[in-house]
Amino acid sequence: MNIPRVDLPRIVVVGCGFAGLKFVQTINSKQYQIVLLDKNNYHTFQPLMYQVATSGLEPDSITYPIRKIFKGKKRFHFRKTSVERIDTEKKQVHTTIGPIEYDHLVVAVGATNNFFGNQDVEKYAVPMKSLLESLQLRSMILQNFEEALNTSDIEEQNRLMNFVIVGGGATGVELAGALAELKAHVLPNDYPDLDIRRMEIHLVEGADSVLAAMSDLASKKSYDFLKKSGVNIWLNTRVESYDGETVITNKENFASKAVIWTAGVKARTLPGLETGGSKNGRILVDDRAKALAHEDVYVIGDMAEMRSDENPRGHAMLASVAGQQGKWLASNFNALARGKETKAFVYKDKGTMATIGRNKAVVDLKKFSFSGYFAWLTWMFVHLMLLVDFRNRLIVFTNWAWRYIKYDRGSRLIIREFKRSEPNIKQTETTKKSSV
Amino acid sequence: MNIPRVDLPRIVVVGCGFAGLKFVQTINSKQYQIVLLDKNNYHTFQPLMYQVATSGLEPDSITYPIRKIFKGKKRFHFRKTSVERIDTEKKQVHTTIGPIEYDHLVVAVGATNNFFGNQDVEKYAVPMKSLLESLQLRSMILQNFEEALNTSDIEEQNRLMNFVIVGGGATGVELAGALAELKAHVLPNDYPDLDIRRMEIHLVEGADSVLAAMSDLASKKSYDFLKKSGVNIWLNTRVESYDGETVITNKENFASKAVIWTAGVKARTLPGLETGGSKNGRILVDDRAKALAHEDVYVIGDMAEMRSDENPRGHAMLASVAGQQGKWLASNFNALARGKETKAFVYKDKGTMATIGRNKAVVDLKKFSFSGYFAWLTWMFVHLMLLVDFRNRLIVFTNWAWRYIKYDRGSRLIIREFKRSEPNIKQTETTKKSSV
Repeated sequence: MNIPRVDLPRIVVVGCGFAGLKFVQTINSKQYQIVLLDKNNYHTFQPLMYQVATSGLEPDSITYPIRKIFKGKKRFHFRKTSVERIDTEKKQVHTTIGPIEYDHLVVAVGATNNFFGNQDVEKYAVPMKSLLESLQLRSMILQNFEEALNTSDIEEQNRLMNFVIVGGGATGVELAGALAELKAHVLPNDYPDLDIRRMEIHLVEGADSVLAAMSDLASKKSYDFLKKSGVNIWLNTRVESYDGETVITNKENFASKAVIWTAGVKARTLPGLETGGSKNGRILVDDRAKALAHEDVYVIGDMAEMRSDENPRGHAMLASVAGQQGKWLASNFNALARGKETKAFVYKDKGTMATIGRNKAVVDLKKFSFSGYFAWLTWMFVHLMLLVDFRNRLIVFTNWAWRYIKYDRGSRLIIREFKRSEPNIKQTETTKKSSV
Repeated sequence: MNIPRVDLPRIVVVGCGFAGLKFVQTINSKQYQIVLLDKNNYHTFQPLMYQVATSGLEPDSITYPIRKIFKGKKRFHFRKTSVERIDTEKKQVHTTIGPIEYDHLVVAVGATNNFFGNQDVEKYAVPMKSLLESLQLRSMILQNFEEALNTSDIEEQNRLMNFVIVGGGATGVELAGALAELKAHVLPNDYPDLDIRRMEIHLVEGADSVLAAMSDLASKKSYDFLKKSGVNIWLNTRVESYDGETVITNKENFASKAVIWTAGVKARTLPGLETGGSKNGRILVDDRAKALAHEDVYVIGDMAEMRSDENPRGHAMLASVAGQQGKWLASNFNALARGKETKAFVYKDKGTMATIGRNKAVVDLKKFSFSGYFAWLTWMFVHLMLLVDFRNRLIVFTNWAWRYIKYDRGSRLIIREFKRSEPNIKQTETTKKSSV
């Protein structure tokens, strides 16, 4: 990798999710040379991926080219590459385009799907933790209805139209709500030859409530909203196996060729980095985000386990934590360069929210929670504001306004076919050792 | 394929390009049962594919879901499938989802790339005749700059940044203009580590002018516009071979890893259909579009060769011809059902146009030609109006307005990587026998 050395310490940043993005936006490139590595040439706004999967938005609305974000930034170099391993002895990152030396390394490659070792589920269920997986999921959803048209076997039709979403966290709840809207407003028009009333949406959750990480009000209201939208909710229900046709749980079994997995995430790993004693694959760091097991290596975002009295198992894997850590760590580097003191990380909880569909959302702020139409407006406003720039906001807003008025969605395009027999994306996403 | 027979003649339409689309929009489904087959679930507005390839528009702006277009149409059935062969004896279309019977068959599967038997060129050059190929071309363009960053071999860098567009028709000219805009306004910001002035754009044309099918004014003006934009134009120059690194022509040779093929198209073929004596693979039809070699088989659009005194070799392969033939043939069917006479096809030339970039276009109307800023406004207006519905128009207009004001383009996303060694899309697009 031919990036010239300059007379400044070099920080290599691996990963341009929320943590890496905010870090590079905040770091003072008069004090450091910055090299950013990511396997994609774009940043993904993950909270809206479920809308790509359900034909509500196109990929360009929720992604942003990395080179454009950092246009004009001096002493900044982006390279689109995959990281193979870290050599903390020689202070080198080994990539598909050769090694690169670092003075400081910031690792922020985030999380991926966790199937908890269940290989059958991993093989047949469709996850949604990357843009490509979202597009794959969209193809699966649409193709299932195309396939249902071509069989006169009623049971096979049911399997194709029987959607089982595993996991009642924000992703599962938002997907279930979006599928319910497709069922109510879009699919009956698109498939007049099918009786769409036979489409079923099941949400399977192991705990005793949906959105368990949110407030009681949010859990209860989202449960009610989903019920009212026609989603069947199965609490205290854990998936035991799935052979591509039947989901076996500790309670109910489901005949389904449309199982969506949102039940677990785990930190990605990078060969050469020691966890430092974490039990769940995250990298244990101190309150300055420095990896316990290595010098000059910092870990932020979903990958990092920063323990404190308040968070004995580390912070939640949230976009907001990742973004704040990115900004905070860069500020610490900036302070160091000016001879000032660094600060310990303090998470500012600005609230969490989830949307269940038209006019329905739940919002938890620090002091109080609310739900319904006003929560939905809040959700829309906050997500529009969080999108990276004005053009994305404009396109997303146009799409949303259109949908709201017309009860319609964007283009239901199957650009790449989903292949049931060879879920190729999933394999490359989850079984590769290096994952930047 | 379980589509119930009704007490009406069944017309099976193969292909939903401009010809198939207009046919189904016009046919009276009180008189006929309509079955439309296409391998994609969307219609593609091909004239704007070059903007997808050059990061100007996203796929959803130039595609439209077929089911949505025909929402509410009675006795209409769409199936997403590939046609394997036609059995004109038994009057059946054999597809990947089983056979289907027809009373009348309308074939409109259009054209594909023509490499004139040059397998090396087919292997290494990137074509742009489908949405997937446009996306592949986008990935190739962007990846070349990413790769150029990672080599210190100056010659390799030049090969990666040396774009050779083969074919000076509308597609080649519009692509060259769009690449020139990328070079002038976008790439220098995106790749500050590269000297983008070293990027070269060559347009290679075998005839003695560009846009040879248009007026002399259009040819001359587009030549001037391209020259002014920095495009190198090589007339009377024919590509003889390309090994992935060097293009050999009858005049100049080019070291390039970025060869784009827009030099030829040919009719697609469907096993079971006889050409009826056409020399170029099209299907010879009479002035009612009936295939000479078969009963109850009609062919329209690029595939059809409808000879007349004015067009001894058939009509040009143009979207406008295809659309008009679709509408006209459906009107004939409608007339027949009411016991009226059918009419012979008469092509109404409403003009042709091409855009070369910001404020630059050429327009040929029947009586006169013009170019420049007003031509460019005309081009924009006509293409916006031709896009299928209001939402697409709105999104495209937003994108274009943004680009015009900001000298910027949409998201430069590499969603699927282009693999130089295995140009997979091209293979499935051009070597499969059946091609619906």
